Amino acid sequence: MADRPIVTLTTDFGLNDHFVGTVKGVILNIAPEAEIVDICHSVKPFDLLDGALTIAQAYSYFPADTVHLVVVDPGVGTARRPLVANTERHRFVAPDNGVLSLIYRREERCRVHHITAEHYYLQPVSQTFHARDIFAPVAAYLAKGVAPETFGEAIVDFSRLELPQPTVVNAHTLRGVVLKVDRFGNLVTNLTPQNAAPLFQSPPPPFRIVVGKQEIRGLKAAYAEGAPGELFAILGSMGYLEIAARQASAARALGAGAGAGLAVDVVLDEAAGAES
Amino acid sequence: MADRPIVTLTTDFGLNDHFVGTVKGVILNIAPEAEIVDICHSVKPFDLLDGALTIAQAYSYFPADTVHLVVVDPGVGTARRPLVANTERHRFVAPDNGVLSLIYRREERCRVHHITAEHYYLQPVSQTFHARDIFAPVAAYLAKGVAPETFGEAIVDFSRLELPQPTVVNAHTLRGVVLKVDRFGNLVTNLTPQNAAPLFQSPPPPFRIVVGKQEIRGLKAAYAEGAPGELFAILGSMGYLEIAARQASAARALGAGAGAGLAVDVVLDEAAGAES
Amino acid sequence: MADRPIVTLTTDFGLNDHFVGTVKGVILNIAPEAEIVDICHSVKPFDLLDGALTIAQAYSYFPADTVHLVVVDPGVGTARRPLVANTERHRFVAPDNGVLSLIYRREERCRVHHITAEHYYLQPVSQTFHARDIFAPVAAYLAKGVAPETFGEAIVDFSRLELPQPTVVNAHTLRGVVLKVDRFGNLVTNLTPQNAAPLFQSPPPPFRIVVGKQEIRGLKAAYAEGAPGELFAILGSMGYLEIAARQASAARALGAGAGAGLAVDVVLDEAAGAES
Repeated sequence: MADRPIVTLTTDFGLNDHFVGTVKGVILNIAPEAEIVDICHSVKPFDLLDGALTIAQAYSYFPADTVHLVVVDPGVGTARRPLVANTERHRFVAPDNGVLSLIYRREERCRVHHITAEHYYLQPVSQTFHARDIFAPVAAYLAKGVAPETFGEAIVDFSRLELPQPTVVNAHTLRGVVLKVDRFGNLVTNLTPQNAAPLFQSPPPPFRIVVGKQEIRGLKAAYAEGAPGELFAILGSMGYLEIAARQASAARALGAGAGAGLAVDVVLDEAAGAES
Repeated sequence: MADRPIVTLTTDFGLNDHFVGTVKGVILNIAPEAEIVDICHSVKPFDLLDGALTIAQAYSYFPADTVHLVVVDPGVGTARRPLVANTERHRFVAPDNGVLSLIYRREERCRVHHITAEHYYLQPVSQTFHARDIFAPVAAYLAKGVAPETFGEAIVDFSRLELPQPTVVNAHTLRGVVLKVDRFGNLVTNLTPQNAAPLFQSPPPPFRIVVGKQEIRGLKAAYAEGAPGELFAILGSMGYLEIAARQASAARALGAGAGAGLAVDVVLDEAAGAES
Repeated sequence: MADRPIVTLTTDFGLNDHFVGTVKGVILNIAPEAEIVDICHSVKPFDLLDGALTIAQAYSYFPADTVHLVVVDPGVGTARRPLVANTERHRFVAPDNGVLSLIYRREERCRVHHITAEHYYLQPVSQTFHARDIFAPVAAYLAKGVAPETFGEAIVDFSRLELPQPTVVNAHTLRGVVLKVDRFGNLVTNLTPQNAAPLFQSPPPPFRIVVGKQEIRGLKAAYAEGAPGELFAILGSMGYLEIAARQASAARALGAGAGAGLAVDVVLDEAAGAES
């Protein structure tokens, strides 16, 4: 183990309460040598997909042996299982509700253990704050070098989210969806160079993107390339097509309803383009 | 002292300004070996009770010898005293305005010192940012191992908040109050297994909880147990009775006014229950 | 280099996304010994002046050799240059868009390098997230002790913001402007003891400050000195005159429009005072 093992935190706890501080205290009490790193605590409350996207975008940049605590846990206190997931480089501690789905998809070798070794838990275990009582202690012991299999048996029937996939509306039209709106008001869609290949040809065939009441025809390489007030598409740093506006919020420009779930239609003006 | 002493921060500074960063810089300049841990910076501005609740929920989980900086300080620059409070396991640095009241109550041995050793302060001392000029330096020197009594004389006349206590309305009715609304919209009340014992009998006598215009009859063990849309009561992780809703904000369901200060009446349908 | 070099982060990334976590991962992967300290991630999106003010208020309190990553970067992916700025005590990594303007002004010796050593970048370099791909790696290598000049040639034609200066309206009136509104609702102006000297005489000549529809005649030393509901002026911890209210938001009291850019007129009732 490293002299200073890293434990990252990704939660929907927000920053207005003691929740995050308490979790940090538990970790440091068990593993005072740990370096705790906040990834994000503003995952939308109870939103497993938002949590899954957040950890998926950040984890791979951390050093080997980082422990990632991921707690979006609407089922806290019920029978849903606590898990350790172990990939070649990283460890994850999370509830078994699909919040790690993108990790499972991206990591070829991922072994998942059902945490049952209760002697690692904080006692007494509440039914309302397992991040404090179960997940934080397990993350801390992982950081101290306790092996993942120590916490419980390997399982294969863990929960996976159905991630929204683009759908083919007709020969000309692919329908994506907004996954999230980021800080800057960019609408992050589920369209990628893989699932919407024609858009990413060089040059792309004539196309329009229909989102809300707007039609977008521009595809830019940098956020600053658009004209003031112009909505355009851009391949964002997450690997997804985004709808953006130069130094402005595309979400605000699109008005109410421009959030997760909004349809984004890619219409190719020549059907031929849809085949490539 | 530990190789890497921990200093936690609990403030009402918010996260939109340089305040928190500046405090961290001051601490690290004096004690570069310190590990700074954010507990919460979103205590409601000037709200001593909110600050007191926040630190009280988190401090005890931290390792021995942790230094807790707690700054909610509407009286900055006036005669209110700066304090070091020293318990068996922890040290606290805070203004003498009651923000440590719950620490004083929970810790049997707590020695409080009035900070007067000005040579530890950052110079010149402003009248507007004592967290930077007084509290952060004192916290840093405590983290370096300077003894609490070094900073000034022990005092016993420090300020304590009157914490809201439930009141007996009549033989059937106990009136509590909402202390705060958490991130998830749960209403945290001042009712506990101690002061509202009948509710926590197994099983409880028939009861209803009247909050705003709603009557609540369910007491659940886990947040996920309620039916969609149902308001219910639950013993939360803070040790207080909460009004909650499954994967939804109870505060929003209750509408405007569902915040700190709202009355929460526990009505026992049989008077006998109130005596137990 | 220190055993545990400090890297601070000041960005407009907000706290709702993975951006900050990803940047931290990149830094720790290169410099696992680094101590990462959040200064602020809530700089207003794309607002260079807000970013410049934030880092300027915090950096000097950090220990020598701290590396400050400052990313407010509306021009990401365009020809604007990435920079390392090197002062006697600190290093800065930022885009060349003026966000370091206040550092350039305050630091007598500041050498600025245009980062061109692409082998330090994360590959491939996106056009949308240079904080991850360029700035974070460079900050991490600086923290590891790589010399600033290693990253590229010294330049002198770096961008500087025009900072708003008070203007003389007439012999009696100096017009300042609100630079920002802080967490507590205080309006931070660009008036200082240097550029509005008469106000800071002891005692000041008769004056009134006109802001929005209000006239303010009081100058207080501490935030708690005002009467409830009273607006007053105060020399804040940033070194600027602020408009404040006791335990209340001056911005809210002044109503809509009480934000950055609002005019603040200092009117001396005796012309003589304006000359001193």
